[in-house]
Amino acid sequence: MRQLQLSRAFTLMESGPVVLVTTHDGKQHNIMTISWTMVLDFTPEFAITTGEWNHSFAALRKNRECVIAIPTVDMLDQVVGIGTCSGADTDKFARFKLTPVQGKVVKAPLIKECLANIECKVVDIVRKHNIVVLEAVAAYVDPARKEKRTVHAVGDGTFIVDGRKMDRRKMMASKVPDGL
Amino acid sequence: MRQLQLSRAFTLMESGPVVLVTTHDGKQHNIMTISWTMVLDFTPEFAITTGEWNHSFAALRKNRECVIAIPTVDMLDQVVGIGTCSGADTDKFARFKLTPVQGKVVKAPLIKECLANIECKVVDIVRKHNIVVLEAVAAYVDPARKEKRTVHAVGDGTFIVDGRKMDRRKMMASKVPDGL
Repeated sequence: MRQLQLSRAFTLMESGPVVLVTTHDGKQHNIMTISWTMVLDFTPEFAITTGEWNHSFAALRKNRECVIAIPTVDMLDQVVGIGTCSGADTDKFARFKLTPVQGKVVKAPLIKECLANIECKVVDIVRKHNIVVLEAVAAYVDPARKEKRTVHAVGDGTFIVDGRKMDRRKMMASKVPDGL
Repeated sequence: MRQLQLSRAFTLMESGPVVLVTTHDGKQHNIMTISWTMVLDFTPEFAITTGEWNHSFAALRKNRECVIAIPTVDMLDQVVGIGTCSGADTDKFARFKLTPVQGKVVKAPLIKECLANIECKVVDIVRKHNIVVLEAVAAYVDPARKEKRTVHAVGDGTFIVDGRKMDRRKMMASKVPDGL
């Protein structure tokens, strides 16, 4: 995995892909599938929606760190599988044949098989709305990966795969930060 | 436009499309382009990131209502145009040849040309993070529309168009609310 400038990390998240969020609770790793995410600015800050209903939430609240790993369409069955079982009784890395990799800053693991990984610190938890605010502290992409298409959950059990790209950089020049 | 059950409204937003958000400030309509959105639960609640930097924010804060309109790929140049000029000096409905339609609940207009529209009330504004929490109060889709592909902003001036759909309803049955 190649390190990515933090100022570009939001471009991994802005299109709204389903992501995997890893935590480490002091004893073991866990992974949850999250579709409810939001970029908060042209900064490496993100929001995710989670709460007590996710086993990972306890580790997220206690250790205040996680990794957002971005899977691609070839991993969809793993992504759905991870989202439909619980870390309370399942070692999800073992069950779904994923490889944890130690990051540079946080104890939660990167996922080797993913297209991109973002190490994050918890900045704030807005309990009233179950919103967790994260700040990226390191980001990586796997430039060798051929499959780059992410998937977007519709919410009814169906998913939309990335299609063609359209370039509006010229029209957007006044709004996009320099260097992107 | 055909009314959509409120319990399904989140499925219009969960995949993370770029949306148009309309407001009415008591005198005139306005529209902003927003890519930073998040579903908050299997309820018709959403979060959007916005603040003083958007002219629409004053109306949103004052009147505590808006419409989220979901455009499709054939509207991309309008979407980008709306996002790169200001309602402070532009009548965006006129400039971008869009038709405001009165909704049932809020004063902010639906956009006739969009695939779907969601009338929303502001539930809360989390100023610290520029997060506005919305509750849907009515939702509509245009079943006659042929083009249904939405677009997802990457954040660098490029966009990803919806590609193929994949069905994982059976695997997801334990997680998806009944009736979806």
